[in-house]
Amino acid sequence: MIELIGISAGVLTTICWLPQALSIIRSKSAKDISLTAQCAFTAGVFLWLVYGVALERPALIVANAVTFALAAAILILKLRFG
Amino acid sequence: MIELIGISAGVLTTICWLPQALSIIRSKSAKDISLTAQCAFTAGVFLWLVYGVALERPALIVANAVTFALAAAILILKLRFG
Repeated sequence: MIELIGISAGVLTTICWLPQALSIIRSKSAKDISLTAQCAFTAGVFLWLVYGVALERPALIVANAVTFALAAAILILKLRFG
Repeated sequence: MIELIGISAGVLTTICWLPQALSIIRSKSAKDISLTAQCAFTAGVFLWLVYGVALERPALIVANAVTFALAAAILILKLRFG
């Protein structure tokens, strides 16, 4: 039951990054995104992933692995499109 | 050590919400924010808070309590300023 709560939390806090990533790809612009905030967020999500692995908690691992991939993609797009 | 990783992750993924909340308050505009994405994110962070309480993990509890407060504030500002 606990992992189910975690997985639902993970789905919700991950899918909401998709529209932003898609809109940057479509508009080829990431001017609304703060590079500092995006770096901090991407690093933080990576640490949550390490935390999940250390605790062997699937919900933390899966949610943060997907969110890290999206956050890193947004960071790369920010560096590329400015 | 594990909780230290979680607390560092929490600090990083929480502070990056501050600039957004402050810029909405200053500009009295939240047009760049998707109401659907913000609702999903706020609900997701609340579930992470429940997950942290269920696992009795301080890092998850503190980080998600603060992030939930910020996300909820941004949601209220979005509903108020549009």
